[in-house]
Amino acid sequence: MNARGFASDNNSGVSPEVFRKLSEINNGHVVGYGDDPYTEHAVSLMREHFGPSAYPYFVFTGTAANVLSIATALQPFNSVICAETSHMQEDECGAPERFSGCKLIPVETENGKLKPETVVKHLRGFGFEHHSQPGIISISQSTELGTVYTIEETRQMAELAHSHNMYLHIDGARLSNAAVSLGVSLKELTADAGVDVLSFGGTKNGLMAAESVIFFREEFTRNAKYIRKQSMHLASKMRFVAAQFIAYFENDLWKRNAQHANAMAQKLYQAVKDIRGVKVTQPVEANGVFAVIPENVIPLLQKEYFFYVWDEEVSEVRWMTSFDTAQEDIDGFAKKLHELIG
Amino acid sequence: MNARGFASDNNSGVSPEVFRKLSEINNGHVVGYGDDPYTEHAVSLMREHFGPSAYPYFVFTGTAANVLSIATALQPFNSVICAETSHMQEDECGAPERFSGCKLIPVETENGKLKPETVVKHLRGFGFEHHSQPGIISISQSTELGTVYTIEETRQMAELAHSHNMYLHIDGARLSNAAVSLGVSLKELTADAGVDVLSFGGTKNGLMAAESVIFFREEFTRNAKYIRKQSMHLASKMRFVAAQFIAYFENDLWKRNAQHANAMAQKLYQAVKDIRGVKVTQPVEANGVFAVIPENVIPLLQKEYFFYVWDEEVSEVRWMTSFDTAQEDIDGFAKKLHELIG
Amino acid sequence: MNARGFASDNNSGVSPEVFRKLSEINNGHVVGYGDDPYTEHAVSLMREHFGPSAYPYFVFTGTAANVLSIATALQPFNSVICAETSHMQEDECGAPERFSGCKLIPVETENGKLKPETVVKHLRGFGFEHHSQPGIISISQSTELGTVYTIEETRQMAELAHSHNMYLHIDGARLSNAAVSLGVSLKELTADAGVDVLSFGGTKNGLMAAESVIFFREEFTRNAKYIRKQSMHLASKMRFVAAQFIAYFENDLWKRNAQHANAMAQKLYQAVKDIRGVKVTQPVEANGVFAVIPENVIPLLQKEYFFYVWDEEVSEVRWMTSFDTAQEDIDGFAKKLHELIG
Amino acid sequence: MNARGFASDNNSGVSPEVFRKLSEINNGHVVGYGDDPYTEHAVSLMREHFGPSAYPYFVFTGTAANVLSIATALQPFNSVICAETSHMQEDECGAPERFSGCKLIPVETENGKLKPETVVKHLRGFGFEHHSQPGIISISQSTELGTVYTIEETRQMAELAHSHNMYLHIDGARLSNAAVSLGVSLKELTADAGVDVLSFGGTKNGLMAAESVIFFREEFTRNAKYIRKQSMHLASKMRFVAAQFIAYFENDLWKRNAQHANAMAQKLYQAVKDIRGVKVTQPVEANGVFAVIPENVIPLLQKEYFFYVWDEEVSEVRWMTSFDTAQEDIDGFAKKLHELIG
Repeated sequence: MNARGFASDNNSGVSPEVFRKLSEINNGHVVGYGDDPYTEHAVSLMREHFGPSAYPYFVFTGTAANVLSIATALQPFNSVICAETSHMQEDECGAPERFSGCKLIPVETENGKLKPETVVKHLRGFGFEHHSQPGIISISQSTELGTVYTIEETRQMAELAHSHNMYLHIDGARLSNAAVSLGVSLKELTADAGVDVLSFGGTKNGLMAAESVIFFREEFTRNAKYIRKQSMHLASKMRFVAAQFIAYFENDLWKRNAQHANAMAQKLYQAVKDIRGVKVTQPVEANGVFAVIPENVIPLLQKEYFFYVWDEEVSEVRWMTSFDTAQEDIDGFAKKLHELIG
Repeated sequence: MNARGFASDNNSGVSPEVFRKLSEINNGHVVGYGDDPYTEHAVSLMREHFGPSAYPYFVFTGTAANVLSIATALQPFNSVICAETSHMQEDECGAPERFSGCKLIPVETENGKLKPETVVKHLRGFGFEHHSQPGIISISQSTELGTVYTIEETRQMAELAHSHNMYLHIDGARLSNAAVSLGVSLKELTADAGVDVLSFGGTKNGLMAAESVIFFREEFTRNAKYIRKQSMHLASKMRFVAAQFIAYFENDLWKRNAQHANAMAQKLYQAVKDIRGVKVTQPVEANGVFAVIPENVIPLLQKEYFFYVWDEEVSEVRWMTSFDTAQEDIDGFAKKLHELIG
Repeated sequence: MNARGFASDNNSGVSPEVFRKLSEINNGHVVGYGDDPYTEHAVSLMREHFGPSAYPYFVFTGTAANVLSIATALQPFNSVICAETSHMQEDECGAPERFSGCKLIPVETENGKLKPETVVKHLRGFGFEHHSQPGIISISQSTELGTVYTIEETRQMAELAHSHNMYLHIDGARLSNAAVSLGVSLKELTADAGVDVLSFGGTKNGLMAAESVIFFREEFTRNAKYIRKQSMHLASKMRFVAAQFIAYFENDLWKRNAQHANAMAQKLYQAVKDIRGVKVTQPVEANGVFAVIPENVIPLLQKEYFFYVWDEEVSEVRWMTSFDTAQEDIDGFAKKLHELIG
Repeated sequence: MNARGFASDNNSGVSPEVFRKLSEINNGHVVGYGDDPYTEHAVSLMREHFGPSAYPYFVFTGTAANVLSIATALQPFNSVICAETSHMQEDECGAPERFSGCKLIPVETENGKLKPETVVKHLRGFGFEHHSQPGIISISQSTELGTVYTIEETRQMAELAHSHNMYLHIDGARLSNAAVSLGVSLKELTADAGVDVLSFGGTKNGLMAAESVIFFREEFTRNAKYIRKQSMHLASKMRFVAAQFIAYFENDLWKRNAQHANAMAQKLYQAVKDIRGVKVTQPVEANGVFAVIPENVIPLLQKEYFFYVWDEEVSEVRWMTSFDTAQEDIDGFAKKLHELIG
């Protein structure tokens, strides 16, 4: 039995409902590459949740979802404005640049969230061929720092983008956590708020390896299927990706899992916030808790509960909760932390 | 219950052993991105089968395996000599060119197999900067036409490559079928025959979505991990890819599945070869049967057993068998074909 | 004083008219990057010759012109059908693939000329995401083998392309030679014949380093300027490229130079065709002569007149004439060849 | 006669010495693509100035020089640390990303100059496959803000790079101006200071269209010629690029032109610095003067002397001098500025 920790929501396994669905559809032959009834069903479930303007394309990784979003919506001479802390800027080894040819423009933030006033100074050089043409504003929802954009903040960013003939992209690897945090539907947080293209994740929230790009503009579908194939992410046995999304949406698994993870983050926050020497550094709005703790405590605590240091310089750590975090994990962790700080 | 057909080995589902293994390892947390004990175990099993010079990297699709092979071994100014019928030339929508920058040089073949004499005329322009520098000879094993290279033929191709400071790549999406066809080990057919880099597939032979690149040169491992990440194919929950390969190798599932598929192809061949109006066009060496049949029969037969037309001009069709093809499928198919031609 | 040979029309220097024009405009300051009156004048002269549907963009090399043509007209998931002997397939070190991401499909020819019947079999897989989507048919005019497409042949190729929603591209590094060979205008041979995009060369015909892409579809101009900048071919002191084209068109220098070069090729052909042991292998329609000559003669002849062997296997050589080839060069060369074969 | 302004050093024409040299070598035939005696001579002159470890490759544009530097020294999974104001980040339309696949990391500066302490925080993630691997520190010399790195500052940056197994690149579009500003040789400022790869410009300092990459590591020459060809920058009539560099180095034209331009900038600085309402914002160390002037004056002054606004928000303008700026230009300009503010 593997121990649970707080390193990342992708260190967790797969929800039992997902396994059941995978098993259920594992019979006989169906056509490969997405031309099968399961894929059709999954797409239709997703359009129920995201609205009729949503065109989902399945891929295997979040990096692929981000890259496919960019490469489909833009031309190589465009740029993408994103947070300095965003996954695409920091954690994708330059995959967006290599595959799409586009330039990424990193913007400093306090809490992982772009603001119109920090973005707007990069919206320049339009029509000037020496300058990468700004094409996308990309925000992460929830952010890499566990914070959440409100619907209104999202809409403002969409308006800023559209007023410059640009698109709004959401890296929604953890969109479910954001939606349950705000108590809104997936559609309200995306299609209704003016989002043009979305990386919608499942893997971090109980799926095995299932991510998607959802285009909210029909014109993107003209090229998307070719670009997905070129991006090496067209699954041959697509039904097994589709099945994961069917399980995700059939009984609101996406919501239950995200609610649980978020609730566990709140419990963790409550359990540690008053420990002497612990300073929580970000508002806890989704499923992550960021805190400065005494430097010497870190390695000792990591021996029992694996997690990552976020900023070595200031001894800031990141604790992520997930769909399978248990109350006992929180209790044991807080107790241990308390003991170690002593 | 989905009906079985002869369209492609990737229309099949997943072997029960694979499901069991996935389920077995689905507990608690393990570190993501391949730094887990399951991945280590899978790698070690693969090195038992391919020898100590093998360095496996897991990816999700066969296209990714081919592209990662090229992009790691070569520079963008190199070219790849491959069969006109190869998957990388014909069925990957230009992914190799887009991601690696390399040129593909397609070579005509009679049966999907390159021969030294057809390759050698493309081995020119070395040192001449106007010419894409030949860098890889790529062969498919078994080929897209169901034929198999002998060990000796593989070795000759490796020697041809090496004598020009080039590498030999195998697209081994169906390498297991080739190995059991020849009755040799995976190592004899690759490492021992001089292969430098291999796309080794599992999905077409009973896995869910598990492919790999195996480098047989340690120097390739310097860059491979970065290139895999840039190719968007680093799995976060890697243990679920690794588990598929564990199941594949723990009890010779790879061999049993391939033997079954090949045996079914032989039975199919025996069942149809003497039907009047049927002309088998390629030697049946792996799990595919190619035949010319009366044009009017095709759509009628497809109604009950799905399969693809290979060459419309001459009314040539392709029938693939897989790990789950049953004797009754063969019997029913041959009977139906006989009736329709009748 | 450098000796003249028959190696290539780009071994020649620069026409005096071009020098005079460069010198004439070399005064004071003008805005860089093409926003100057010389560029405007050059563009307007070219639109006189190619018609009002022509949108010229200047670059420095023929390879850049070809790559910019492809990268502007197509997406990376498209393919380009071209002759096996074409410059883009054979002599550009894979630049088209690396920069545009597109696949090149080489087609065998007898004389460097594509024919509808050899092209048509590659026009397939439309809408099928596994297959690079055919996007351009590219022909060389005159060809790398010194042959010329008639207007009618060009129009047929354009119709073939358009009937598949594809474009016709001409690699016109030697378009001037083709036009004077046929006795037609540049417009008749391009815009009027249905050409969509043209690489129009000057360097091989008396300019210093001046090539261009001419788009015959306004929609291509939306992105072309950004793509040229990204291709690293936006000249800062553009006036000196423009000036070359001004000299080229102001007094029909393009035509006079091409006529001279072609005439010299005819003279060369007449002078050598009846020498015993010399077999001219291609019709002499532009400024190149291809011939099989005795193998042992080649190195001896090259000592005095530099030229290239085209096909070592059959001892076939290529002799190119240029705007500065003199009658005495022909006489001396033919005499020497005669002596050596003796 | 075109009026001279202060918009950019590339708005100027070509030095007479360069024209003479181009004319002098324009006779007869020489082999194309750099295999000619003029190129050999130019290379040898450059190695005299830059030392025996210098390997020069000629290209047509500064963007190409930067991109070729990156693409040759690095792999696509590497990153380049550069100033936020650098040409490659700001003015190349994403050409580096598109062609090399690398990520650019822009760093804020006060005066266009990177400092070790602002660079070092980006030197992280080594060996971590999620992170673009830092590969190059790139500095501009002189900078886009008219400032100059001392030899010691250059050496420190080289040491910082080398201590992380990275390379130091200089964008030396205006290296000549920096060298004469410091009164040092080109070799002292590059090879001797630990520079690994250099974009060395000529066009901004009196040449027509001649730029170069100079590698100071022999291992880079293994691939450089292929990458230059793929970058579409291998000149066919290379002798005319080489001739420009011959003229540049034969009689210290590079130095005389740069000295003149720098001296003119000093004169301009002296002439305007005490005008009321003018605030010079950067040290004048090369051939540029940056100043804040009254907003309403800008368009009036531009009518007579063309120049660019650098920062609209604060009404900051950029005035560049060049090899052909005359004393009368300075006098007239200062007088006009005085009048307008007056």
